[in-house]
Amino acid sequence: MSIPVPPVPSFPPAELTLTQVPGLKAAGVKAGLKASGNPDVGLLVSDAPMAVAGLFTQNHFAAAPVVLSKANLVRSGHTARALVVNSGNANACTGLQGEKDAEEMAHRVAKGLGCPPEQVLVCSTGVIGVKLPMDKVRAGIDDALAQLSREPEAGRRFLSAIMTTDAFPKEASARVGEAVVAGVCKGAGMIEPNMATMLAFMAMDLDLRGEQLKRALPGLAAASFNAVHVDSHTSTNDTFLLFSTRKVRPSTDWARHVEPVARRLAWLIARDGEGATKVTTIEVTGAATSEAARRIAKLVATSALVRTALYGNDPNWGRFTSQVGNSKDVRHPRSLSCVLQGLEVFKNGEPTAFDRAAASKAMAQEDVRLELKLKDGPGHAVVLTSDLGYRYVQVNAEYTT
Amino acid sequence: MSIPVPPVPSFPPAELTLTQVPGLKAAGVKAGLKASGNPDVGLLVSDAPMAVAGLFTQNHFAAAPVVLSKANLVRSGHTARALVVNSGNANACTGLQGEKDAEEMAHRVAKGLGCPPEQVLVCSTGVIGVKLPMDKVRAGIDDALAQLSREPEAGRRFLSAIMTTDAFPKEASARVGEAVVAGVCKGAGMIEPNMATMLAFMAMDLDLRGEQLKRALPGLAAASFNAVHVDSHTSTNDTFLLFSTRKVRPSTDWARHVEPVARRLAWLIARDGEGATKVTTIEVTGAATSEAARRIAKLVATSALVRTALYGNDPNWGRFTSQVGNSKDVRHPRSLSCVLQGLEVFKNGEPTAFDRAAASKAMAQEDVRLELKLKDGPGHAVVLTSDLGYRYVQVNAEYTT
Repeated sequence: MSIPVPPVPSFPPAELTLTQVPGLKAAGVKAGLKASGNPDVGLLVSDAPMAVAGLFTQNHFAAAPVVLSKANLVRSGHTARALVVNSGNANACTGLQGEKDAEEMAHRVAKGLGCPPEQVLVCSTGVIGVKLPMDKVRAGIDDALAQLSREPEAGRRFLSAIMTTDAFPKEASARVGEAVVAGVCKGAGMIEPNMATMLAFMAMDLDLRGEQLKRALPGLAAASFNAVHVDSHTSTNDTFLLFSTRKVRPSTDWARHVEPVARRLAWLIARDGEGATKVTTIEVTGAATSEAARRIAKLVATSALVRTALYGNDPNWGRFTSQVGNSKDVRHPRSLSCVLQGLEVFKNGEPTAFDRAAASKAMAQEDVRLELKLKDGPGHAVVLTSDLGYRYVQVNAEYTT
Repeated sequence: MSIPVPPVPSFPPAELTLTQVPGLKAAGVKAGLKASGNPDVGLLVSDAPMAVAGLFTQNHFAAAPVVLSKANLVRSGHTARALVVNSGNANACTGLQGEKDAEEMAHRVAKGLGCPPEQVLVCSTGVIGVKLPMDKVRAGIDDALAQLSREPEAGRRFLSAIMTTDAFPKEASARVGEAVVAGVCKGAGMIEPNMATMLAFMAMDLDLRGEQLKRALPGLAAASFNAVHVDSHTSTNDTFLLFSTRKVRPSTDWARHVEPVARRLAWLIARDGEGATKVTTIEVTGAATSEAARRIAKLVATSALVRTALYGNDPNWGRFTSQVGNSKDVRHPRSLSCVLQGLEVFKNGEPTAFDRAAASKAMAQEDVRLELKLKDGPGHAVVLTSDLGYRYVQVNAEYTT
């Protein structure tokens, strides 16, 4: 059977890469961890200790590098000199040996840089349940240390070293006054836990302490990565790190200016849902509370029926509204209205007359917007989801060995 | 693109049909509600008032016939003379006219039988948001009244009149001492709310009052229909009715003997998940409580990643266990073991060495069993799920008009 592979979208590269944040160097090398032979060990290093904050998977089976990096953040007082990442192997479900291997990675980088090991953070992504081939990892780290560079290309090599099943590289940047914010991430939206690790790294040269980054991080994540589909279904390795090299004095509303970078990265992840052809933004307004709005939006976003309708450009209001009707958070269902790409397809609990062919055509876009309007209260939430097509089944039904 | 349609499974017919329950007559006629021209109005009638209990959708947008039937159960003191069902149109999201149409259906049957209208229950299934073509419905009801019969074939015609997207008829029966239990249902598992209405009707000649049926029904449903995948995602029309014609004195444990009929009907619904190739029974043991076990089982059963792995006969323990790891109900994740078709693939929080090819082969069956064993407490739950393949996408991404 021949399954059409949706064309790989191409997006213009970000203006700035990680190495254009003053104070940062990076490398990305081929250590032989990926069968593809692509770069698989990445290293990001700062000239002086950076401030850093992190958010990590809530999964009970958090991988060894996650456990280590969380501990290192505490030990180092939320400072870091380096981040080492390998792809091709998640070092998850690998027991005591996995913990030792993650520690060895941090130690090797620390020795190369002459810094305390707790100032090195470690991330891994790839297959789970397989021990790291440490001989290759060691050689890769040594190579990466030798190749550290401030060139924009070094930032892009770092990015390519963190990718796994990603169909395209994901980067975003912004200038905030005199300061620079650059970010990269890997991960394909919607594919739930296994192999779907999301890694996101953002760096900037704002003069912010770890404590300040830590306070801002949950809000940044809620507006971006956690708005992508099933955020409760985290992989064993999910990690979001925010670094600052502490050079430029920030304004009081710095987080507001940094947020678009995180949001763009999250959109790119949703766009790369395996076999996805579009990103659908589901906005719930008028729910009793924002928490209720979020639960309703997620219920719709995670429905396989909704997502196949989005794939088929099917303006199937019945699937959208009956999913809202399933939510215990809805108080006045008869006031529900539903607007799809600007077209009102359901109003006050009943279907409206609308041009189905026009609605279907309007859905055949990169960006689809589905508004679900209630009259229960002031609650508001936005969730991004990707569509579910044949290619998703093909990618995920393939035998793993 | 050509998507392979999985072969339609064929199961031996049940020994007994509804009309073989003493006291019952049935009919199934073609009223022109279905584009296919297949039977679409079914009528089940008892000689004398039956005892009856019902469970209905929790969806906020409950269809007009659901609202009416719930009210009639109360008005009639849980007795009924007849059940009228139409397929091809769900009479849901049809406003005030829909309510009037459902009432008219009950009245027309009541007039034909000479019974109070509250002793007639009404169910509808099919497209939502479209008003019933009442001229056709009226003619269909009149035809059905004229064709009522006690022949086994009449029971089978009733069954064919309630089917919609079902790939095969679903029926089950049992003898309980001197008594007879027969049941039919329609619905395809796993496809969540819209168009996925589940209707299940069971009848028996045990001498039980409505109050007794009402008390037993939640337990029966929990062991059967509510164990099929996403039970919280009910359609606007879901209905489960249990009738008794009150002839044979029941034993005290009658419900235990009736349960296998409900469980068989639920299995058939799971088997008919659109494009499904098998039914997977997910059993969680050792959870803190049975409620916790049920939530964990459902989290695994509803994962698109798990379901595509089942489709692909992929013994992908990482998908099963990391989904368990996502549950807030798990207390001691490191004690998780996972047994797939009798093969232990994960033990005490770590992967085991197992023969992947043999495991994959063992998964290529009608019935797959996935055991997830915790050591948190005595909680136990069983959930049925179907796999997710190409055909699911095809069926659900098609344009509705």
